[in-house]
Amino acid sequence: MNATAKPAGNHERRAEVSSALARRLPAHAVLTAREDLFPYECDGLSAYRQTPLVAALPGTVEEAAEVLRVARETGTPVVARGSGTGLSGGALPLADGILLSMGKFNRILAIDPLARVARVQPGVRNVQITEAVAPLGLYYAPDPSSQIACSIGGNVAENAGGVHCLKYGLTVHNIQKVAALSIEGDALELGADALDAPGYDLLALMTGSEGLLALLTEVTVKLLPKPQVAQVVMASFTNVEAAVDAVAKVIGAGIVPAGLEMMDKMATAAVEDYVHAGYDLEAEAILLCESDGTPEEVAEEIAKITEVMREAGCTRFAVSGSEAERLKFWSGRKAAFPAVGRISPDYYCIDGSIPRGALAKVLRRIAELSKHYGLRCANVFHAGDGNLHPLILYDANVPGEFERTEEYAGNILELCIEVGGTITGEHGVGVEKIGQMCAQFNPAELAQFHAVKAAFDPPGLLNPGKAVPTLNRCAEYGAMRVQGGRLPHPDLPRF
Amino acid sequence: MNATAKPAGNHERRAEVSSALARRLPAHAVLTAREDLFPYECDGLSAYRQTPLVAALPGTVEEAAEVLRVARETGTPVVARGSGTGLSGGALPLADGILLSMGKFNRILAIDPLARVARVQPGVRNVQITEAVAPLGLYYAPDPSSQIACSIGGNVAENAGGVHCLKYGLTVHNIQKVAALSIEGDALELGADALDAPGYDLLALMTGSEGLLALLTEVTVKLLPKPQVAQVVMASFTNVEAAVDAVAKVIGAGIVPAGLEMMDKMATAAVEDYVHAGYDLEAEAILLCESDGTPEEVAEEIAKITEVMREAGCTRFAVSGSEAERLKFWSGRKAAFPAVGRISPDYYCIDGSIPRGALAKVLRRIAELSKHYGLRCANVFHAGDGNLHPLILYDANVPGEFERTEEYAGNILELCIEVGGTITGEHGVGVEKIGQMCAQFNPAELAQFHAVKAAFDPPGLLNPGKAVPTLNRCAEYGAMRVQGGRLPHPDLPRF
Repeated sequence: MNATAKPAGNHERRAEVSSALARRLPAHAVLTAREDLFPYECDGLSAYRQTPLVAALPGTVEEAAEVLRVARETGTPVVARGSGTGLSGGALPLADGILLSMGKFNRILAIDPLARVARVQPGVRNVQITEAVAPLGLYYAPDPSSQIACSIGGNVAENAGGVHCLKYGLTVHNIQKVAALSIEGDALELGADALDAPGYDLLALMTGSEGLLALLTEVTVKLLPKPQVAQVVMASFTNVEAAVDAVAKVIGAGIVPAGLEMMDKMATAAVEDYVHAGYDLEAEAILLCESDGTPEEVAEEIAKITEVMREAGCTRFAVSGSEAERLKFWSGRKAAFPAVGRISPDYYCIDGSIPRGALAKVLRRIAELSKHYGLRCANVFHAGDGNLHPLILYDANVPGEFERTEEYAGNILELCIEVGGTITGEHGVGVEKIGQMCAQFNPAELAQFHAVKAAFDPPGLLNPGKAVPTLNRCAEYGAMRVQGGRLPHPDLPRF
Repeated sequence: MNATAKPAGNHERRAEVSSALARRLPAHAVLTAREDLFPYECDGLSAYRQTPLVAALPGTVEEAAEVLRVARETGTPVVARGSGTGLSGGALPLADGILLSMGKFNRILAIDPLARVARVQPGVRNVQITEAVAPLGLYYAPDPSSQIACSIGGNVAENAGGVHCLKYGLTVHNIQKVAALSIEGDALELGADALDAPGYDLLALMTGSEGLLALLTEVTVKLLPKPQVAQVVMASFTNVEAAVDAVAKVIGAGIVPAGLEMMDKMATAAVEDYVHAGYDLEAEAILLCESDGTPEEVAEEIAKITEVMREAGCTRFAVSGSEAERLKFWSGRKAAFPAVGRISPDYYCIDGSIPRGALAKVLRRIAELSKHYGLRCANVFHAGDGNLHPLILYDANVPGEFERTEEYAGNILELCIEVGGTITGEHGVGVEKIGQMCAQFNPAELAQFHAVKAAFDPPGLLNPGKAVPTLNRCAEYGAMRVQGGRLPHPDLPRF
């Protein structure tokens, strides 16, 4: 994709940039051979691939600063990469750019149980933090499905969530401070070791900025005391509307579950065949609703959830009786993406957020669109948050099927906007959803984004072309939001 | 203060700006008479006063946009104001500027119990929201001491906290979306009705930006289910170190109290004489520690807190036995500022944040400085958050005493930086702490703040001179932070 690379000119450029890098970094930290660059061609959104000009693997902050200096001096764009698990192509390399891997920044630098924080390098894996602080009775709350592999730096770049973010918040709510390098080479400290920092909230601004503003070099995360107990309720429903109604009733009853997830029949079938968690294969929708806290609190909350699920007409119902069973109940949800991968040659995972009140309407419309496009769609999502993850099943080898999938996906995202929601929940915009940004924001808002970008990265070298579309691109895309979230373009599907 | 107004030139300017405003706003919405402007001369930091050029009181978003247009066309700075309860002079008028009061924007526009949000105008008072949603079993969590009077727009501008922010977060964690007008007249929507929004997190950037980036016209706040029960523990200690140790032990025990506050002997004496809450007048320090949740959860947490307080050596101990008693226990803490106002002609309230581990050291140093300056200091603070509010008692009529107070206050703030903390917890920078910003941030960080400001407000007309000092001003102030939070200037007090 985006095969803008001109082989000959590119060859010279590669020689120039890689020799500049080689003068400043250890030899093993600069990769230029085709086979060495291959692992960096794509991130988790593997439908998009691009070989970078060169890859740099700095091992220290000083070396990372040298990479940025080479970028600046040679006018070369830089794409930073953590573990490469991102799902929107945020770490997709540029043909004329440096791929800057933060893989060597994998150390936990300090743990402070009194302040309840850990200071870590950005390449540390999400789950590594929880493992390191578990002996202290603490944990790091955000838990994206990829938490075994994904890096905390990538989590910050994408403002990652997870099944527990309904109660514990997104990454932005769970970090306290970052250190970063500007493209100009300045070291910035954003946030503070104390509760609040004066000045503009650049820590929050950095979170979710997809590598466009600065290069993260350190992250101080907040830690929480591990709940004494957690139990999960699994409830079956004979139709999606009833399950959605149960979600509304749980929230309406004043419960803040630790997680509230939904899977539809196709997703359930796929995961049951894969993990054998005992899911109800007759149900049209399954809810998983978790409670955590003290034993008494969990007992009371589970009783309330039970009552609400029964009232909403659930047909089967189970409460995890042990920690092993709780993990089994969750196993299917956590493995949903690979499970779906087993029943289809390819699948496309969508990430959109909607107000909870629009769940039923949007799910109905997704089903209608599934028929329209002749493509199956499995629904797995954070129902409590209104964060949808429809998985469109397709076969890339069938001509036209990927294009139909992309159109279907675009329709779902615009439907999210239409009902007052957004085109991301936790996966970011990257290259994947840059078109839909034109529908999400008006020209003044996009101009404001570009002004912020220019305030941090005047030469525009950090991850250019991702996350925020140019106004020209939006004009080509043919849709620009008018005030109030309506899509003005007559050719776009309306609901 | 800042008496830069030149009477004659100012007179012409006033005529020009007020007639431009009068052409676009209803007659009663433009104030120019000295006696009409008097109420706008200062906010809660009354040591600083300035009559504005003119005051504008728009009643609609369109009228507010007209005020900004006049500002733009005449090159006149604008200072927006909510209820005027701010404690750092963020709403201090400019002699050559428009004071834009948002007082008429006082309507609650929508309440959505399923989405658990309320959409309100920025002039709505903090407590009004909780009162409006109480019948639904919901409330708005941030509760600054001024919550009866302060506006939600001001809360967003200052990122206000309160006694419950240890558990429930600051304003930034409790809002979902804002509408704002840029100085260029563009309507911006920041945040979303869904959980997460794509693009840079301009919602968080706006929060705490002290009116320097855009004018808020609407705020969508998150609502929480009201906890079934709350109980508060009041514990006395014979020395401050033991109380600080108790705070560390509560946190170390994995408890997240709904509030954890400390008052020292002078504060206790002042408030007891005022509210008669039954505080222990012998204690050197009193802790108030609240638990909220289900009855079972609260019972268990209170038992744990009791044990920890006893272990830490508390000498008197009481648990609120009823809601009335709970409110009585809190009454002193909530009335601490006016109570201290009764025992001294004037007092100066400081707001700094430090890592919890530095509490004992910082309190000891505050006591030493009290002797050094010959000024009494009462300590009332959010101990759980490490958010200090030392109240320096002084008499403005004693020559030199205010200057000594300011120096003492500056020393405390720099001490906060020295131990890894910050110069604000929840009151903002305003005009009050602009000097200390030079010690908090390095030149690259301040330059980054100015670049962000320029990205939102190219002509620099929104609340200029507040919150972020120019590098020139820092040079005059004589201190610029070097990397690592150390104060380089040899004349500054070192600890």
